[in-house]
Amino acid sequence: MTTRPPTPNAPAWIETLRWNDDGLIPAVVQDSTTGAVLMFAWMNREALVRSLATGQTHFYSRSRQALWHKGATSGHVQEIIELRVDCDADVLLVRVRQHGGACHEGYTSCFFRKLDGDRLIVDADRRFDPASVYL
Amino acid sequence: MTTRPPTPNAPAWIETLRWNDDGLIPAVVQDSTTGAVLMFAWMNREALVRSLATGQTHFYSRSRQALWHKGATSGHVQEIIELRVDCDADVLLVRVRQHGGACHEGYTSCFFRKLDGDRLIVDADRRFDPASVYL
Repeated sequence: MTTRPPTPNAPAWIETLRWNDDGLIPAVVQDSTTGAVLMFAWMNREALVRSLATGQTHFYSRSRQALWHKGATSGHVQEIIELRVDCDADVLLVRVRQHGGACHEGYTSCFFRKLDGDRLIVDADRRFDPASVYL
Repeated sequence: MTTRPPTPNAPAWIETLRWNDDGLIPAVVQDSTTGAVLMFAWMNREALVRSLATGQTHFYSRSRQALWHKGATSGHVQEIIELRVDCDADVLLVRVRQHGGACHEGYTSCFFRKLDGDRLIVDADRRFDPASVYL
């Protein structure tokens, strides 16, 4: 765990979070209406501060090494309804109102496959065509 | 992402998972009845294989560097009802029937605190006394 200097104007509770060695914290995103777990992503401190400031989820993309405003391209933004912190202060649970679908493959949730015996099956319907959203 | 030799007798779908450089995959645990997100932990391949074989969650403790059968000490085991995999095959969603509470601090869920203005507040009741469970 790394110790970092406080971010100016960040609320004190953010300083109690335990970021990993890369300065990231896992964020589980849940639909606040249906309870469906929509996706899992990482936030750095800036992503969290921006999420709080805008009321919409921002994450940190480890592959692109860049801040990422969820829905900026697709319009499928997530309005933050509630933010929760786990016992060890090293995981966030973000309860949201999801616009469109959370998954870039066109599904409401990224968890559209389930284990059925010894294989994975898709048991959800696509709610949008990815090709028409991500041009 | 690391490539590892197949585990004997492991179903083929496990080989499609993308483990991180430490051979771990994040697991979000959700109550299959209430939809509450209970906890977040990591699995290595052995934890996943044991979870599937026993029908109860097993994780890998990074701090203790050891396999961990959830509820082995407390009796608060998690029966696996459904296992889901995300679009990128690098996160698991484990839907369970939770016995007792998932959180070692005595709460049903580890996410017993929520952001209220600029501070975190506890908005859940303890369902057991940790001191009486973890002797």
